[in-house]
Amino acid sequence: MDLAQAKVALDTLWVVITACLVFFMNAGFAMLETGLCQAKNAVNILAKNFIVFAVSSIAFWAVGFALMFGDGNPLVGLTGWFLGGADNSPAMGEAYQGVFASLNWTGVPLYAKFFFQLVFAGTAATIVSGAVAERIKFLSFILFSFLLVALIYPVGGHWAWGGGWLGTAGFKDFAGSTVVHSIGGWAALTGVMILGPRIGKFAKDGKVNPIPGHNMSLATLGTLILWLGWFGFNPGSTMAADVNAIALVALNTNMAAAAGCLAATAVAWVVLGKPDLSMILNGTLAGLVAVTAPCAFISVASSLLIGVVAGVLVVFAVIMFDKVRLDDPVGALSVHLVNGVWGTLSVGLFATEGGLLMGGGGALLLTQLKGVLAVGAFTAVASAACWYLLKVTVGIRVTQDEEREGLDTGEHGMEAYPGFASSSAPSTLQMSKA
Amino acid sequence: MDLAQAKVALDTLWVVITACLVFFMNAGFAMLETGLCQAKNAVNILAKNFIVFAVSSIAFWAVGFALMFGDGNPLVGLTGWFLGGADNSPAMGEAYQGVFASLNWTGVPLYAKFFFQLVFAGTAATIVSGAVAERIKFLSFILFSFLLVALIYPVGGHWAWGGGWLGTAGFKDFAGSTVVHSIGGWAALTGVMILGPRIGKFAKDGKVNPIPGHNMSLATLGTLILWLGWFGFNPGSTMAADVNAIALVALNTNMAAAAGCLAATAVAWVVLGKPDLSMILNGTLAGLVAVTAPCAFISVASSLLIGVVAGVLVVFAVIMFDKVRLDDPVGALSVHLVNGVWGTLSVGLFATEGGLLMGGGGALLLTQLKGVLAVGAFTAVASAACWYLLKVTVGIRVTQDEEREGLDTGEHGMEAYPGFASSSAPSTLQMSKA
Amino acid sequence: MDLAQAKVALDTLWVVITACLVFFMNAGFAMLETGLCQAKNAVNILAKNFIVFAVSSIAFWAVGFALMFGDGNPLVGLTGWFLGGADNSPAMGEAYQGVFASLNWTGVPLYAKFFFQLVFAGTAATIVSGAVAERIKFLSFILFSFLLVALIYPVGGHWAWGGGWLGTAGFKDFAGSTVVHSIGGWAALTGVMILGPRIGKFAKDGKVNPIPGHNMSLATLGTLILWLGWFGFNPGSTMAADVNAIALVALNTNMAAAAGCLAATAVAWVVLGKPDLSMILNGTLAGLVAVTAPCAFISVASSLLIGVVAGVLVVFAVIMFDKVRLDDPVGALSVHLVNGVWGTLSVGLFATEGGLLMGGGGALLLTQLKGVLAVGAFTAVASAACWYLLKVTVGIRVTQDEEREGLDTGEHGMEAYPGFASSSAPSTLQMSKA
Repeated sequence: MDLAQAKVALDTLWVVITACLVFFMNAGFAMLETGLCQAKNAVNILAKNFIVFAVSSIAFWAVGFALMFGDGNPLVGLTGWFLGGADNSPAMGEAYQGVFASLNWTGVPLYAKFFFQLVFAGTAATIVSGAVAERIKFLSFILFSFLLVALIYPVGGHWAWGGGWLGTAGFKDFAGSTVVHSIGGWAALTGVMILGPRIGKFAKDGKVNPIPGHNMSLATLGTLILWLGWFGFNPGSTMAADVNAIALVALNTNMAAAAGCLAATAVAWVVLGKPDLSMILNGTLAGLVAVTAPCAFISVASSLLIGVVAGVLVVFAVIMFDKVRLDDPVGALSVHLVNGVWGTLSVGLFATEGGLLMGGGGALLLTQLKGVLAVGAFTAVASAACWYLLKVTVGIRVTQDEEREGLDTGEHGMEAYPGFASSSAPSTLQMSKA
Repeated sequence: MDLAQAKVALDTLWVVITACLVFFMNAGFAMLETGLCQAKNAVNILAKNFIVFAVSSIAFWAVGFALMFGDGNPLVGLTGWFLGGADNSPAMGEAYQGVFASLNWTGVPLYAKFFFQLVFAGTAATIVSGAVAERIKFLSFILFSFLLVALIYPVGGHWAWGGGWLGTAGFKDFAGSTVVHSIGGWAALTGVMILGPRIGKFAKDGKVNPIPGHNMSLATLGTLILWLGWFGFNPGSTMAADVNAIALVALNTNMAAAAGCLAATAVAWVVLGKPDLSMILNGTLAGLVAVTAPCAFISVASSLLIGVVAGVLVVFAVIMFDKVRLDDPVGALSVHLVNGVWGTLSVGLFATEGGLLMGGGGALLLTQLKGVLAVGAFTAVASAACWYLLKVTVGIRVTQDEEREGLDTGEHGMEAYPGFASSSAPSTLQMSKA
Repeated sequence: MDLAQAKVALDTLWVVITACLVFFMNAGFAMLETGLCQAKNAVNILAKNFIVFAVSSIAFWAVGFALMFGDGNPLVGLTGWFLGGADNSPAMGEAYQGVFASLNWTGVPLYAKFFFQLVFAGTAATIVSGAVAERIKFLSFILFSFLLVALIYPVGGHWAWGGGWLGTAGFKDFAGSTVVHSIGGWAALTGVMILGPRIGKFAKDGKVNPIPGHNMSLATLGTLILWLGWFGFNPGSTMAADVNAIALVALNTNMAAAAGCLAATAVAWVVLGKPDLSMILNGTLAGLVAVTAPCAFISVASSLLIGVVAGVLVVFAVIMFDKVRLDDPVGALSVHLVNGVWGTLSVGLFATEGGLLMGGGGALLLTQLKGVLAVGAFTAVASAACWYLLKVTVGIRVTQDEEREGLDTGEHGMEAYPGFASSSAPSTLQMSKA
């Protein structure tokens, strides 16, 4: 082994291990989203959140990775389908020869690059699952996830990370507040709008009926797994054993999470009267989503500020989405979309190089805004087209009867917790029938 | 630090970290198996799956590691009891001097080698737990686990990995489709046969009564933990920071899992009418088990094919085991035994060097088949002997009354979920009494 | 990259990755403690165990780290507030220039040092959560956690690890049996004493009413996560890619856990009549806590002995605390305090250099005893002062009505498992009212 090989080994270990942490976020999302939904739909949500990574693996391998990172034009990549084509990784920079030149800044084997990027793509798809839960058809979710990971996510990703026009313009999104979280969020938003709310969520008189999650232990476990996974998501995005960046990013990630947690707790305590656990959890996730874009470009103090704003935003966003009658069972829009946008913009405010509040002028902030709008517009339009396509073909929503009974029996022919008695207290379902 | 030391450090970090991932599979198996069984037996399954690693730790330290990797003859290792004896690890190859020459291809400290191999041994024992669940005595499971990890697993392991005759003959099992999964599977099969089915599982009229698992959230979490753990299991089996092998193995592992997942989902959808969640989970595990042997020797496309076959196999195997009235509550035989065999044979078909379908002729396939049969025959006979020994001494099955009431009160004097009401709907137990 | 940089990279990867494992222990404690308490208090315990790491992050960043590791005097650190001040890490030893000289033995960036130490500080605070569960006010727990991590833990930590008088005196606590576990344990003990027992736990006639945990699946999962996390906690405390130390520490950690598990199982079987699952779990944790101090200084055989003693101790300690009417819902005192003390003393008995039983005389044992007493006395007094301060200001205990109904509705306005029916069998609560 020579020094160059040692460096490749260090970088590869880091990339593969952090990819594993990000992979584990699938378990985090599965537990969080299942816990925040009703028991009668638990099997369905679990099945969706589980199979989505299998679907993503095939979609990103066959099509998505090439569209995102393959050599092409400023809009899309056009080479490297099925992970094929020339590639002399781990050669870097000028020495790199192959079809994935946009990733020549990281010196690890191609398959390690793909594995790391795959777990990111899978995350974007998982975000959708929670928002459309408790009424979407299993098949149409699978198909949408395929389209999202094969076609939509990679295009936005190409713009920012794959050699596309946005990256060239100076857009900065270190680990994906926009690329992963807000793309997932916009796709979720269109899904929520086109699917409509769950039966009984919004009464005719304007009243919003809370539909409580069935298992807060799982939801909390899921959030802790996500927090852990973010230590792969953000620090791993160095894609190299760059010690100073890793240490800074890990710390910023944690401090924004802590600040988001405490801010959301405080705001919920004041606004809602009690420190609601789902707000505590979503506040943390909000801080994590927000700091994902800026984590490598800001100071620790800035990460705290960004987290505080995220924690405040998420509480009011949840209330706001209810007010505009968009039914998002797990708060995915408030966490991933709202704070994906906030985090992306915060780069323009707090980046030590170029941030408005750091004396860098407004140019970076404008570029960030441009990125938010462009990626948002593209994703919303493309996602809406996919949802409509599915709506007029396989259909996207289960029947009213199935929704009332629960998707577990309807879609999967099984229950999540057979043997446990349901509460005889008036259930949400009964209330909604009244 | 010089370059040689850097290499030892890289290799050791990789081995220890991946060993941690494999250790975590204990949590995966515990959640999967508990979730797929009944609530009244949950404490018992949890206790079994927990204590099994403690038992394995003692058994493998005292006896198993020496039998498996100690210098000896082609049938068994005979030195290194209690991890004792000369050993100048991390010296490698010719420079190695000590009693564990069969592991001189990996350059890490002896204790790291042991730790990594221990978590593999523990996995084999855990596989048995699910298959014999809901009717085995706690004490006899502990004793069987000790015998399996101290005596049975190491002998099969010695043949393939410890300098034994099978490895010498060219048998290839990269991370243990045979050594870990099918040894665990054969031990489970004999246990299932000797224990007999759970009361009420098979009606006299030939009808098979499904006994649904009590918590699909835990089962899904467990499977995601296992999928994560496999990124330690397979890529870690390089036992070195060999970047190209690690990246290939990680990707193949994931693609086979994804393919197994989707294939089992599709087959279950067609054959059973619905995409059953337990089939989705077991299909993934089937793909993972199958790719465990070939993952370092095959292309990504082959891993997809192997996974698809695994996913199909597991669904029909579950149906088949029910038909032949072998009661395996969690599908462990279909996952670990059937696909351990399939994965081992698939090396002979798909290995880029020597695979039949890759133009390598049939020699490797024959060697693989020989390994499957030899290890299977030894394990089945030795396991059956152990089960009988336990049957005539401490007894292996709880009383019918205890089985009906649940093993939690009978074996452990406690309930898993006190305070939660049971469903008043006719339970499986009541049906089985009728 | 040169060799020195490679070493820094290796060390940093190790420190950051093991810190992630230790962070994950938050999930372990959350699941264990929630599972061992009642369903009606689950949201509260989850919220406490979740928010405590956010609180710890702020407290340790602003104050705690400086008090613990900042340059100062033998009693406290006095520099480095808000992680500020000069620091040329990863420079080491003589080459280090900065305000955290006590950490100049590890060659990683400052933020990595902080991140690793932060997850340790968070652990100490989490330990308290379980012991004071099911009757403490949410707000007062948050405030106590802040005080503990900002002020109390760092002082004890400074003495042992931060250049203070105890470390100078030769006190050895490799990964924190005293610094983390017994400081957490003493703080918990004073909390338990000042709060008093839960309603109904101790009847007037002297009878002890067991209050069973509501979810043994979660408790078991939590313990497996903790076992995993300990492979970060202990081997990570090398804070360097020191391969021989890592391998030894990992193995010793595991063997003590296994021995503690089996010893507690056997003792519980004999003393209580059945192998109680909570004893199996707590026996494992006892072994882990005990080996935390000595793991780098002892042989594998010693780790087994230390684990066996820990497993025995924990069973009798649980019984003893019940007898003296100290109500610790999850056994935190028996695990962390009793075995934190035992583990610290065991260094004086088993250390290959200086251990009494290894022929090293009694000097080290005396120093260890001095450390146990000094840190214990300081923590107990300081913690009691904080608890009293909170008692007379915000109050520390919920009302009797709230305690009977459950803290989930009282403190958080929500239930953990809405939709699930409670058992109609006489519950603990009803018994306690009778």
